[in-house]
Amino acid sequence: MTQNIYDDAGFFAGYSQLRRSVDGLGGAPEWPTLQSMLPALTGKGVVDLGCGFGWFCRWARDAGAASVLGLDVSANMLARARETASDAAIAYRQADLETLDLPAASFDLAYSSLTLHYLEKLAELFATVHRALVPDGRFVFSAEHPLYTEPGPDYLDEGPRTSDWLAKGVVKQHRTLATYLNLLIDAGFTVRRVEEWGPTRAEIAAHPEWKIDHRRPSFLLVSAAR
Amino acid sequence: MTQNIYDDAGFFAGYSQLRRSVDGLGGAPEWPTLQSMLPALTGKGVVDLGCGFGWFCRWARDAGAASVLGLDVSANMLARARETASDAAIAYRQADLETLDLPAASFDLAYSSLTLHYLEKLAELFATVHRALVPDGRFVFSAEHPLYTEPGPDYLDEGPRTSDWLAKGVVKQHRTLATYLNLLIDAGFTVRRVEEWGPTRAEIAAHPEWKIDHRRPSFLLVSAAR
Repeated sequence: MTQNIYDDAGFFAGYSQLRRSVDGLGGAPEWPTLQSMLPALTGKGVVDLGCGFGWFCRWARDAGAASVLGLDVSANMLARARETASDAAIAYRQADLETLDLPAASFDLAYSSLTLHYLEKLAELFATVHRALVPDGRFVFSAEHPLYTEPGPDYLDEGPRTSDWLAKGVVKQHRTLATYLNLLIDAGFTVRRVEEWGPTRAEIAAHPEWKIDHRRPSFLLVSAAR
Repeated sequence: MTQNIYDDAGFFAGYSQLRRSVDGLGGAPEWPTLQSMLPALTGKGVVDLGCGFGWFCRWARDAGAASVLGLDVSANMLARARETASDAAIAYRQADLETLDLPAASFDLAYSSLTLHYLEKLAELFATVHRALVPDGRFVFSAEHPLYTEPGPDYLDEGPRTSDWLAKGVVKQHRTLATYLNLLIDAGFTVRRVEEWGPTRAEIAAHPEWKIDHRRPSFLLVSAAR
Protein backbone atom coordinates (compact mmCIF):
# COMPACT_ATOMS: atom_id res chain seq x y z
CA MET A 1 0.00 0.00 0.00
CA THR A 2 1.12 3.52 -0.74
CA GLN A 3 2.73 5.42 2.12
CA ASN A 4 0.17 7.57 3.95
CA ILE A 5 2.53 10.39 4.87
CA TYR A 6 -0.30 12.83 5.51
CA ASP A 7 -1.16 11.03 8.72
CA ASP A 8 2.41 11.46 9.95
CA ALA A 9 2.04 14.10 12.69
CA GLY A 10 5.17 16.06 11.72
CA PHE A 11 4.36 16.02 8.02
CA PHE A 12 0.76 17.03 8.66
CA ALA A 13 1.83 19.93 10.87
CA GLY A 14 4.24 21.14 8.20
CA TYR A 15 1.80 20.62 5.38
CA SER A 16 -0.85 22.58 7.25
CA GLN A 17 1.46 25.61 7.21
CA LEU A 18 1.93 25.66 3.42
CA ARG A 19 0.41 28.58 1.62
CA ARG A 20 -1.81 26.25 -0.41
CA SER A 21 -3.08 24.75 2.86
CA VAL A 22 -3.79 28.10 4.48
CA ASP A 23 -5.06 30.04 1.46
CA GLY A 24 -6.49 27.14 -0.56
CA LEU A 25 -6.63 27.23 -4.33
CA GLY A 26 -5.59 30.89 -4.42
CA GLY A 27 -2.38 29.89 -2.67
CA ALA A 28 -1.49 27.34 -5.33
CA PRO A 29 0.42 29.08 -8.14
CA GLU A 30 -0.56 26.45 -10.72
CA TRP A 31 -4.29 26.76 -9.95
CA PRO A 32 -5.17 29.36 -12.65
CA THR A 33 -3.75 27.05 -15.32
CA LEU A 34 -5.43 23.97 -13.87
CA GLN A 35 -8.72 25.85 -13.55
CA SER A 36 -8.55 26.83 -17.23
CA MET A 37 -8.46 23.12 -18.10
CA LEU A 38 -11.69 22.28 -16.24
CA PRO A 39 -15.07 21.82 -17.94
CA ALA A 40 -18.16 23.77 -16.89
CA LEU A 41 -19.47 22.23 -13.66
CA THR A 42 -23.03 23.49 -13.42
CA GLY A 43 -25.23 20.59 -12.37
CA LYS A 44 -22.39 18.08 -12.71
CA GLY A 45 -21.12 15.26 -10.53
CA VAL A 46 -17.51 15.50 -9.39
CA VAL A 47 -15.07 13.16 -7.66
CA ASP A 48 -11.85 14.54 -6.16
CA LEU A 49 -9.07 11.95 -5.82
CA GLY A 50 -6.94 13.09 -2.91
CA CYS A 51 -9.18 15.93 -1.73
CA GLY A 52 -7.04 16.95 1.25
CA PHE A 53 -8.65 19.79 3.16
CA GLY A 54 -11.52 19.92 0.64
CA TRP A 55 -10.66 23.24 -0.99
CA PHE A 56 -11.48 22.00 -4.47
CA CYS A 57 -14.66 20.20 -3.32
CA ARG A 58 -16.00 23.46 -1.95
CA TRP A 59 -14.84 25.39 -5.01
CA ALA A 60 -16.61 22.90 -7.30
CA ARG A 61 -19.85 23.41 -5.40
CA ASP A 62 -19.44 27.20 -5.69
CA ALA A 63 -18.88 26.65 -9.42
CA GLY A 64 -22.25 24.93 -9.64
CA ALA A 65 -21.51 21.22 -9.22
CA ALA A 66 -24.57 19.27 -8.11
CA SER A 67 -22.61 16.83 -5.98
CA VAL A 68 -19.00 16.27 -4.99
CA LEU A 69 -17.32 13.19 -3.58
CA GLY A 70 -14.01 13.93 -1.88
CA LEU A 71 -11.71 10.97 -1.35
CA ASP A 72 -8.53 10.89 0.68
CA VAL A 73 -6.44 8.26 2.41
CA SER A 74 -5.69 10.61 5.30
CA ALA A 75 -8.03 10.68 8.29
CA ASN A 76 -6.35 13.92 9.39
CA MET A 77 -7.12 15.65 6.12
CA LEU A 78 -10.72 14.45 6.02
CA ALA A 79 -11.39 15.53 9.59
CA ARG A 80 -10.18 19.03 8.73
CA ALA A 81 -12.22 19.05 5.51
CA ARG A 82 -15.40 18.04 7.35
CA GLU A 83 -15.02 20.64 10.08
CA THR A 84 -14.24 23.50 7.65
CA ALA A 85 -17.69 23.69 6.10
CA SER A 86 -20.88 21.68 6.03
CA ASP A 87 -22.55 21.02 2.69
CA ALA A 88 -24.93 18.11 2.24
CA ALA A 89 -23.91 17.86 -1.42
CA ILE A 90 -20.27 17.18 -0.51
CA ALA A 91 -19.45 13.71 0.78
CA TYR A 92 -16.01 12.98 2.17
CA ARG A 93 -14.82 9.39 2.28
CA GLN A 94 -11.59 7.76 3.36
CA ALA A 95 -10.24 5.66 0.53
CA ASP A 96 -6.99 4.11 -0.65
CA LEU A 97 -6.80 5.21 -4.29
CA GLU A 98 -4.83 2.06 -5.18
CA THR A 99 -7.74 -0.21 -4.31
CA LEU A 100 -10.52 2.24 -5.12
CA ASP A 101 -13.91 1.09 -6.29
CA LEU A 102 -16.31 3.59 -7.86
CA PRO A 103 -19.72 3.07 -9.44
CA ALA A 104 -19.71 2.99 -13.26
CA ALA A 105 -20.62 6.07 -15.34
CA SER A 106 -21.32 8.13 -12.23
CA PHE A 107 -19.22 11.29 -12.57
CA ASP A 108 -18.79 14.07 -15.11
CA LEU A 109 -15.42 15.14 -13.77
CA ALA A 110 -12.67 13.31 -11.94
CA TYR A 111 -10.16 15.72 -10.47
CA SER A 112 -6.89 15.12 -8.68
CA SER A 113 -4.38 17.63 -7.37
CA LEU A 114 -0.81 16.61 -6.52
CA THR A 115 -1.73 13.11 -5.44
CA LEU A 116 -0.95 10.69 -8.27
CA HIS A 117 2.84 10.84 -7.82
CA TYR A 118 2.41 9.10 -4.47
CA LEU A 119 0.68 6.06 -6.01
CA GLU A 120 2.41 2.87 -7.08
CA LYS A 121 -0.52 1.46 -9.04
CA LEU A 122 -1.61 4.10 -11.48
CA ALA A 123 -2.87 1.90 -14.34
CA GLU A 124 -5.50 0.37 -12.08
CA LEU A 125 -6.67 3.78 -10.85
CA PHE A 126 -6.88 5.16 -14.39
CA ALA A 127 -9.04 2.18 -15.40
CA THR A 128 -11.28 2.78 -12.38
CA VAL A 129 -11.61 6.48 -13.21
CA HIS A 130 -12.36 5.77 -16.87
CA ARG A 131 -15.12 3.36 -15.88
CA ALA A 132 -16.53 5.81 -13.31
CA LEU A 133 -16.88 8.67 -15.81
CA VAL A 134 -19.84 9.23 -18.08
CA PRO A 135 -19.10 9.21 -21.84
CA ASP A 136 -17.11 12.37 -22.69
CA GLY A 137 -16.54 12.92 -18.98
CA ARG A 138 -13.30 14.61 -18.06
CA PHE A 139 -10.27 13.66 -15.99
CA VAL A 140 -8.20 16.69 -15.01
CA PHE A 141 -5.20 16.26 -12.75
CA SER A 142 -1.98 17.76 -11.57
CA ALA A 143 1.02 15.79 -10.38
CA GLU A 144 4.54 16.64 -9.43
CA HIS A 145 6.42 17.04 -12.73
CA PRO A 146 8.87 14.20 -13.44
CA LEU A 147 11.68 16.76 -13.73
CA TYR A 148 10.85 17.89 -10.19
CA THR A 149 10.71 14.38 -8.74
CA GLU A 150 13.86 13.43 -10.66
CA PRO A 151 15.85 16.55 -11.62
CA GLY A 152 19.09 14.59 -11.95
CA PRO A 153 20.48 12.40 -14.69
CA ASP A 154 18.15 9.45 -14.07
CA TYR A 155 14.96 10.73 -15.68
CA LEU A 156 14.34 7.48 -17.55
CA ASP A 157 14.77 5.30 -14.45
CA GLU A 158 11.25 5.08 -13.10
CA GLY A 159 10.44 4.02 -9.57
CA PRO A 160 10.35 5.29 -6.00
CA ARG A 161 12.23 8.42 -4.93
CA THR A 162 12.64 9.24 -1.27
CA SER A 163 12.92 12.84 -0.15
CA ASP A 164 12.89 14.69 3.14
CA TRP A 165 10.11 17.17 2.38
CA LEU A 166 8.27 18.17 5.60
CA ALA A 167 9.18 14.75 7.04
CA LYS A 168 11.98 12.27 6.60
CA GLY A 169 11.53 9.49 4.07
CA VAL A 170 8.63 10.76 1.99
CA VAL A 171 8.24 8.31 -0.92
CA LYS A 172 7.14 9.52 -4.34
CA GLN A 173 6.85 7.48 -7.52
CA HIS A 174 8.87 8.83 -10.43
CA ARG A 175 7.29 8.28 -13.84
CA THR A 176 8.24 9.87 -17.13
CA LEU A 177 5.80 12.20 -18.79
CA ALA A 178 5.39 9.61 -21.56
CA THR A 179 4.34 7.00 -19.00
CA TYR A 180 1.63 9.25 -17.55
CA LEU A 181 0.24 9.85 -21.04
CA ASN A 182 0.50 6.25 -22.24
CA LEU A 183 -1.23 5.00 -19.09
CA LEU A 184 -4.10 7.40 -19.85
CA ILE A 185 -4.26 6.34 -23.50
CA ASP A 186 -4.11 2.65 -22.55
CA ALA A 187 -7.02 3.19 -20.14
CA GLY A 188 -9.08 4.57 -23.04
CA PHE A 189 -8.68 8.31 -22.46
CA THR A 190 -8.09 10.94 -25.14
CA VAL A 191 -5.47 13.46 -24.07
CA ARG A 192 -6.84 16.97 -24.55
CA ARG A 193 -4.22 19.20 -22.96
CA VAL A 194 -0.80 18.85 -21.36
CA GLU A 195 0.82 21.66 -19.40
CA GLU A 196 4.26 21.65 -17.84
CA TRP A 197 3.83 24.35 -15.24
CA GLY A 198 6.63 26.41 -13.81
CA PRO A 199 6.73 30.01 -12.62
CA THR A 200 7.40 32.67 -15.22
CA ARG A 201 10.56 34.75 -15.00
CA ALA A 202 8.42 37.63 -13.70
CA GLU A 203 6.94 35.42 -10.97
CA ILE A 204 10.40 34.22 -9.96
CA ALA A 205 11.62 37.82 -9.75
CA ALA A 206 8.58 38.78 -7.66
CA HIS A 207 9.13 35.90 -5.19
CA PRO A 208 12.76 35.87 -4.08
CA GLU A 209 11.67 33.66 -1.17
CA TRP A 210 11.09 30.83 -3.65
CA LYS A 211 14.87 30.75 -4.23
CA ILE A 212 14.30 29.41 -7.74
CA ASP A 213 17.01 30.04 -10.30
CA HIS A 214 15.78 27.75 -13.03
CA ARG A 215 12.88 27.33 -15.45
CA ARG A 216 12.29 23.64 -15.03
CA PRO A 217 8.61 22.75 -14.53
CA SER A 218 7.27 21.93 -11.06
CA PHE A 219 3.92 20.46 -12.01
CA LEU A 220 2.42 18.37 -14.78
CA LEU A 221 -1.20 19.27 -15.57
CA VAL A 222 -3.28 17.04 -17.84
CA SER A 223 -6.81 17.15 -19.18
CA ALA A 224 -8.22 13.98 -20.71
CA ALA A 225 -11.61 12.93 -22.01
CA ARG A 226 -13.27 9.57 -21.58
CA MET B 1 13.12 30.33 -43.52
CA THR B 2 14.59 27.53 -41.46
CA GLN B 3 18.34 27.09 -41.67
CA ASN B 4 19.27 24.48 -44.31
CA ILE B 5 22.34 23.17 -42.55
CA TYR B 6 22.36 19.93 -44.55
CA ASP B 7 23.57 21.83 -47.61
CA ASP B 8 26.54 23.17 -45.63
CA ALA B 9 29.48 21.21 -47.07
CA GLY B 10 31.17 20.57 -43.74
CA PHE B 11 27.96 19.53 -42.00
CA PHE B 12 26.98 17.27 -44.90
CA ALA B 13 30.40 15.58 -44.89
CA GLY B 14 30.14 14.99 -41.14
CA TYR B 15 26.53 13.86 -41.29
CA SER B 16 27.38 11.41 -44.06
CA GLN B 17 29.80 9.66 -41.69
CA LEU B 18 27.23 9.06 -38.93
CA ARG B 19 26.30 5.47 -38.32
CA ARG B 20 22.67 6.21 -39.18
CA SER B 21 23.82 7.68 -42.51
CA VAL B 22 26.06 4.74 -43.37
CA ASP B 23 23.93 1.89 -42.02
CA GLY B 24 20.48 3.46 -42.42
CA LEU B 25 17.62 2.56 -40.11
CA GLY B 26 19.60 -0.27 -38.52
CA GLY B 27 22.17 2.29 -37.44
CA ALA B 28 19.59 4.39 -35.60
CA PRO B 29 19.21 3.08 -32.04
CA GLU B 30 15.67 4.48 -31.69
CA TRP B 31 14.44 2.81 -34.89
CA PRO B 32 13.04 -0.40 -33.31
CA THR B 33 10.83 1.70 -31.03
CA LEU B 34 9.77 4.04 -33.84
CA GLN B 35 9.08 1.07 -36.11
CA SER B 36 6.82 -0.47 -33.46
CA MET B 37 4.68 2.69 -33.59
CA LEU B 38 4.04 2.47 -37.36
CA PRO B 39 0.82 1.15 -38.90
CA ALA B 40 0.80 -1.65 -41.48
CA LEU B 41 1.91 -0.17 -44.81
CA THR B 42 0.74 -2.70 -47.38
CA GLY B 43 -0.82 -0.82 -50.29
CA LYS B 44 -0.62 2.50 -48.46
CA GLY B 45 0.51 5.98 -49.47
CA VAL B 46 3.35 7.47 -47.43
CA VAL B 47 4.96 10.90 -47.18
CA ASP B 48 8.33 11.30 -45.44
CA LEU B 49 8.95 14.81 -44.11
CA GLY B 50 12.71 15.28 -44.13
CA CYS B 51 13.60 12.07 -45.97
CA GLY B 52 17.34 12.65 -46.05
CA PHE B 53 19.11 9.84 -47.88
CA GLY B 54 15.79 8.04 -48.39
CA TRP B 55 16.39 5.11 -46.04
CA PHE B 56 12.85 5.19 -44.71
CA CYS B 57 11.30 5.70 -48.18
CA ARG B 58 12.97 2.53 -49.39
CA TRP B 59 12.08 0.67 -46.19
CA ALA B 60 8.43 1.70 -46.57
CA ARG B 61 8.37 0.28 -50.09
CA ASP B 62 9.91 -2.96 -48.83
CA ALA B 63 7.19 -2.98 -46.16
CA GLY B 64 4.57 -2.90 -48.91
CA ALA B 65 3.75 0.79 -49.36
CA ALA B 66 2.17 1.48 -52.75
CA SER B 67 3.79 4.88 -53.12
CA VAL B 68 6.18 7.06 -51.17
CA LEU B 69 6.84 10.77 -51.43
CA GLY B 70 10.16 11.81 -49.91
CA LEU B 71 10.52 15.51 -49.11
CA ASP B 72 13.66 17.29 -48.04
CA VAL B 73 14.96 20.84 -48.11
CA SER B 74 18.48 19.65 -48.89
CA ALA B 75 19.51 19.21 -52.52
CA ASN B 76 22.55 17.25 -51.30
CA MET B 77 20.41 14.73 -49.45
CA LEU B 78 17.96 14.29 -52.31
CA ALA B 79 20.74 13.78 -54.87
CA ARG B 80 22.17 11.00 -52.71
CA ALA B 81 18.70 9.49 -52.19
CA ARG B 82 18.00 9.45 -55.92
CA GLU B 83 21.31 7.84 -56.86
CA THR B 84 21.08 5.16 -54.16
CA ALA B 85 18.22 3.22 -55.70
CA SER B 86 15.67 3.67 -58.45
CA ASP B 87 12.01 2.90 -57.71
CA ALA B 88 9.24 4.41 -59.80
CA ALA B 89 6.94 4.33 -56.76
CA ILE B 90 9.23 6.62 -54.77
CA ALA B 91 9.20 10.30 -55.68
CA TYR B 92 11.74 12.64 -54.14
CA ARG B 93 10.97 16.33 -54.06
CA GLN B 94 12.78 19.34 -52.66
CA ALA B 95 10.51 21.20 -50.28
CA ASP B 96 10.68 23.68 -47.43
CA LEU B 97 8.51 22.05 -44.75
CA GLU B 98 7.57 25.48 -43.36
CA THR B 99 5.77 26.45 -46.56
CA LEU B 100 4.74 22.97 -47.62
CA ASP B 101 1.63 22.36 -49.66
CA LEU B 102 0.22 18.84 -49.92
CA PRO B 103 -2.96 17.59 -51.58
CA ALA B 104 -5.83 16.90 -49.18
CA ALA B 105 -6.60 13.37 -47.91
CA SER B 106 -3.80 11.86 -49.98
CA PHE B 107 -1.65 9.86 -47.56
CA ASP B 108 -2.19 7.06 -45.04
CA LEU B 109 1.02 7.79 -43.16
CA ALA B 110 3.06 10.91 -42.64
CA TYR B 111 6.47 10.10 -41.20
CA SER B 112 9.27 12.34 -40.02
CA SER B 113 12.58 11.40 -38.45
CA LEU B 114 14.66 13.96 -36.52
CA THR B 115 13.55 16.91 -38.62
CA LEU B 116 10.85 18.81 -36.73
CA HIS B 117 13.21 20.35 -34.17
CA TYR B 118 14.78 22.38 -36.98
CA LEU B 119 11.47 24.04 -37.90
CA GLU B 120 10.27 27.38 -36.56
CA LYS B 121 6.69 27.02 -37.81
CA LEU B 122 5.38 23.74 -36.53
CA ALA B 123 1.67 24.60 -36.12
CA GLU B 124 1.37 25.33 -39.84
CA LEU B 125 3.09 22.05 -40.79
CA PHE B 126 0.89 20.03 -38.42
CA ALA B 127 -2.22 21.59 -40.00
CA THR B 128 -0.88 20.74 -43.48
CA VAL B 129 -0.15 17.16 -42.43
CA HIS B 130 -3.56 16.74 -40.83
CA ARG B 131 -5.25 17.93 -44.01
CA ALA B 132 -3.07 15.69 -46.19
CA LEU B 133 -3.93 12.51 -44.28
CA VAL B 134 -6.94 10.32 -44.93
CA PRO B 135 -9.38 9.90 -42.02
CA ASP B 136 -7.69 7.74 -39.35
CA GLY B 137 -4.38 8.25 -41.16
CA ARG B 138 -1.29 8.27 -38.97
CA PHE B 139 1.43 10.77 -38.21
CA VAL B 140 4.50 9.14 -36.67
CA PHE B 141 7.56 11.20 -35.95
CA SER B 142 10.74 11.45 -33.98
CA ALA B 143 12.38 14.67 -32.89
CA GLU B 144 15.28 15.56 -30.68
CA HIS B 145 13.95 15.34 -27.11
CA PRO B 146 13.53 18.73 -25.41
CA LEU B 147 15.84 17.56 -22.62
CA TYR B 148 18.52 16.92 -25.22
CA THR B 149 18.08 20.27 -26.98
CA GLU B 150 17.89 22.04 -23.60
CA PRO B 151 19.50 19.91 -20.86
CA GLY B 152 20.12 22.93 -18.64
CA PRO B 153 17.90 24.89 -16.32
CA ASP B 154 15.93 26.67 -19.05
CA TYR B 155 13.59 23.87 -20.15
CA LEU B 156 10.53 26.13 -20.09
CA ASP B 157 12.16 28.87 -22.18
CA GLU B 158 11.26 27.87 -25.71
CA GLY B 159 13.05 29.19 -28.76
CA PRO B 160 16.18 28.73 -30.83
CA ARG B 161 19.26 26.97 -29.48
CA THR B 162 22.54 27.14 -31.33
CA SER B 163 25.01 24.29 -31.08
CA ASP B 164 28.21 23.29 -32.82
CA TRP B 165 27.22 19.78 -33.92
CA LEU B 166 29.09 18.78 -37.10
CA ALA B 167 29.24 22.49 -38.04
CA LYS B 168 29.34 25.76 -36.17
CA GLY B 169 26.06 27.54 -35.49
CA VAL B 170 23.52 24.78 -36.07
CA VAL B 171 20.15 26.20 -35.03
CA LYS B 172 17.50 24.00 -33.42
CA GLN B 173 14.13 25.05 -32.04
CA HIS B 174 13.55 24.09 -28.42
CA ARG B 175 9.96 23.24 -27.54
CA THR B 176 8.65 21.57 -24.43
CA LEU B 177 7.09 18.14 -24.71
CA ALA B 178 3.75 19.72 -23.80
CA THR B 179 4.04 22.11 -26.73
CA TYR B 180 4.65 19.29 -29.22
CA LEU B 181 1.56 17.48 -27.92
CA ASN B 182 -0.70 20.54 -27.70
CA LEU B 183 0.23 21.56 -31.25
CA LEU B 184 -0.82 18.11 -32.42
CA ILE B 185 -4.07 18.25 -30.45
CA ASP B 186 -4.81 21.78 -31.69
CA ALA B 187 -4.30 20.57 -35.27
CA GLY B 188 -6.98 17.92 -34.71
CA PHE B 189 -4.79 14.89 -34.01
CA THR B 190 -5.40 12.25 -31.35
CA VAL B 191 -2.21 11.30 -29.55
CA ARG B 192 -1.82 7.52 -29.57
CA ARG B 193 1.66 6.95 -28.16
CA VAL B 194 4.47 8.98 -26.68
CA GLU B 195 7.96 7.56 -26.13
CA GLU B 196 10.90 9.30 -24.56
CA TRP B 197 13.73 7.26 -25.96
CA GLY B 198 17.11 6.88 -24.38
CA PRO B 199 19.53 3.97 -24.30
CA THR B 200 19.05 1.35 -21.61
CA ARG B 201 21.71 0.87 -18.97
CA ALA B 202 22.76 -2.33 -20.78
CA GLU B 203 23.13 -0.42 -24.07
CA ILE B 204 25.18 2.27 -22.38
CA ALA B 205 27.46 -0.37 -20.86
CA ALA B 206 27.84 -2.07 -24.25
CA HIS B 207 28.79 1.20 -25.98
CA PRO B 208 31.50 2.97 -23.98
CA GLU B 209 32.20 5.05 -27.10
CA TRP B 210 28.87 6.84 -26.52
CA LYS B 211 30.36 8.35 -23.35
CA ILE B 212 26.89 8.62 -21.85
CA ASP B 213 26.64 8.69 -18.08
CA HIS B 214 22.99 9.67 -17.76
CA ARG B 215 19.53 8.35 -18.46
CA ARG B 216 17.98 11.45 -19.93
CA PRO B 217 16.10 10.81 -23.17
CA SER B 218 17.64 11.67 -26.54
CA PHE B 219 14.59 11.39 -28.73
CA LEU B 220 10.89 12.08 -28.54
CA LEU B 221 8.77 9.63 -30.55
CA VAL B 222 5.08 10.27 -31.13
CA SER B 223 2.28 8.45 -32.90
CA ALA B 224 -0.90 10.40 -33.63
CA ALA B 225 -4.06 9.65 -35.55
CA ARG B 226 -5.99 12.04 -37.77
